[in-house]
Amino acid sequence: LLYNYDLPLIKQQVSKEALAKRQDSFWKFRELLPLKASNQISLGEPYTPILEASFEYNGEVYDVSVKDDGRLPTGTFKSRGMAVAVSKLKELGVKRVAVPSAGNAAAALAAYGAKARMDVYAFMPRDVPEVILKECIRLGAQVYLVDGLISVAGKFVKQLAGDYGWFDVSTNKQPYRFEGYKAIAFELAEQYEWKLPDHILFPTGGGEGVIGIWKGIRELMQLGWIQKAPRITIVQSSGCAPFVEAFVRGRSEIKTSWKKAETIAAGLRVPFPFASYLVLKAVRETGGTAVAVEEKEIVSSMKAFLREGIYAGPEAASTLAAFRELVKNKVLDKKEKTLLYITGTALKHFDSFRVDKSQVHVLNEDTRALRLDREKSERTC
Amino acid sequence: LLYNYDLPLIKQQVSKEALAKRQDSFWKFRELLPLKASNQISLGEPYTPILEASFEYNGEVYDVSVKDDGRLPTGTFKSRGMAVAVSKLKELGVKRVAVPSAGNAAAALAAYGAKARMDVYAFMPRDVPEVILKECIRLGAQVYLVDGLISVAGKFVKQLAGDYGWFDVSTNKQPYRFEGYKAIAFELAEQYEWKLPDHILFPTGGGEGVIGIWKGIRELMQLGWIQKAPRITIVQSSGCAPFVEAFVRGRSEIKTSWKKAETIAAGLRVPFPFASYLVLKAVRETGGTAVAVEEKEIVSSMKAFLREGIYAGPEAASTLAAFRELVKNKVLDKKEKTLLYITGTALKHFDSFRVDKSQVHVLNEDTRALRLDREKSERTC
Repeated sequence: LLYNYDLPLIKQQVSKEALAKRQDSFWKFRELLPLKASNQISLGEPYTPILEASFEYNGEVYDVSVKDDGRLPTGTFKSRGMAVAVSKLKELGVKRVAVPSAGNAAAALAAYGAKARMDVYAFMPRDVPEVILKECIRLGAQVYLVDGLISVAGKFVKQLAGDYGWFDVSTNKQPYRFEGYKAIAFELAEQYEWKLPDHILFPTGGGEGVIGIWKGIRELMQLGWIQKAPRITIVQSSGCAPFVEAFVRGRSEIKTSWKKAETIAAGLRVPFPFASYLVLKAVRETGGTAVAVEEKEIVSSMKAFLREGIYAGPEAASTLAAFRELVKNKVLDKKEKTLLYITGTALKHFDSFRVDKSQVHVLNEDTRALRLDREKSERTC
Repeated sequence: LLYNYDLPLIKQQVSKEALAKRQDSFWKFRELLPLKASNQISLGEPYTPILEASFEYNGEVYDVSVKDDGRLPTGTFKSRGMAVAVSKLKELGVKRVAVPSAGNAAAALAAYGAKARMDVYAFMPRDVPEVILKECIRLGAQVYLVDGLISVAGKFVKQLAGDYGWFDVSTNKQPYRFEGYKAIAFELAEQYEWKLPDHILFPTGGGEGVIGIWKGIRELMQLGWIQKAPRITIVQSSGCAPFVEAFVRGRSEIKTSWKKAETIAAGLRVPFPFASYLVLKAVRETGGTAVAVEEKEIVSSMKAFLREGIYAGPEAASTLAAFRELVKNKVLDKKEKTLLYITGTALKHFDSFRVDKSQVHVLNEDTRALRLDREKSERTC
């Protein structure tokens, strides 16, 4: 199910130096992508920035790096997989695509599908975040909501795809989306001057990002462009943590669906991921681990990121909660170079915050209200 | 009020070739920014992408370029001005900053202020979009809502700044924000290989972006790095179009406040912009024009952008409506290379769309509902 490349040949065709001269975008690695460069469907995919941030924990300050994929076209890393998948499917002559999704993959397919003039059919849980639902509709997708989670949506797509002439772009069930995530490893490698960080914390729902990065790392090693793989640690919510459970129990794959999956991080709500053995293998082979974090930690991490000016959606924010957990348990030490992977922007999620009346001051025509308030704030500053 | 540089000296210090080797970010033009490079407060500001898009109008297809500043840290071009302003103010030792804002400038100040560990005081209209209100609060700003628009908010800041020890970062009332927008011209020039498009359509509320770009263009011409300036056309909503009115009447500045300013594009709701003569001068000197577009055209343009996979907020979407208007009136012709400037992302505005029930299909356990639907959609496709 995974693409294979003639890496020795590619090594002769392209060098790190040649890559450095191309425009920074995941498309620059065209020799390592499964389609003709002229068939790229692009919505503008420059390298996403790596930010440096500091967080306090137990009186100590920890420095971490943060890779912000919230800057991609649809606000999430799903743009990577769908850009490559849609481009390849267009090359193959596909005109109708369908996807079961927790939300963001559908939005990304809808956006690239719109650009490629494909018909997009999106199947999502009935309680998909409102912003994402509207996003899919406005991008022109045909939207179907199911009573259940992504697995139920997947059954519909599987059952109907042949009937309706849809190409099924389900997570981990076709080889194209991985190739988009693979380029994360390439992009990181070049941004870090071909020396990856020691440890990457990655929010994990279906796990395709992890499979992709791992594939990228192996190709980079085979090309001789990097010498050492980072540890890949997956992060889930305690409300839906089938990967963590399987990892902790030493299993090679997830055998049963997680019961009553519930988390504020909609993208992590994947109770029974497909091809789970690939994800678990990636984590074990790189020496990473698997962490489930509490819901309230996800929310407080989202707030902590924002106080640093970093827009991490709930899935992404889980990495900071996991970081704290790993520090607490001494699995991660201060000297390690750690990268928290922001898979999606907070901008789709501000509606989930309530406005606390005490945080907003409504002023009348004169400024007396403010003056009273000043006394208060000077006490609390 | 505008910064002056020793351009002949800078020309000796840095070349286009040297710039090409630096990382793509507006910080790369450090010799042309008013602060030490070591004092940059950054949230990750890579070059924003230029997308190519096609739109149909009256049976003809028009190709336009689109510059997407929605990819900046806070989802809007306001990040540019505030990144430079906050960095410079931090360099000067300022610890408390205040701003009147229609919304996005406050959010950008809040984000960069958070990173710089400054206290941020944001004054906004009471009906500022909910997402932006929450954004400011979560970024740690002290938020004050006023009964009125940005001009009323500005009065509060002006009146109280001295009293509270705030630095007033109001639009066009300090020289720093312009320097951030100036870099738009530099960034565009490098992206277009030092030959700017013929015509730039820019959504205009307070007009600081236009002043900044114009300043950048003049510096580029003086450096001899570009030979020709693009026409700059400003776009407003017919619900608040003081610049368009002044331009059409041949006035050199806006003399009175726009009455009953009302538009879905909150960022364009600036009834009485400060330093309006600079904006009008920029438009006239470059041979541009000023266009007011109808509210319903803004909404339909937002939808049209999304159908191309482009996330333009309402302010930004107005440029497409203006483009159609200019084509209709033969002010703009098909051979001209036109750039629509996306000042902000649609992601902050999906809550303003209603979900039309007919666009969402809720599926039961079996697929009969879908099958019925299929017949319908095949009729309408």
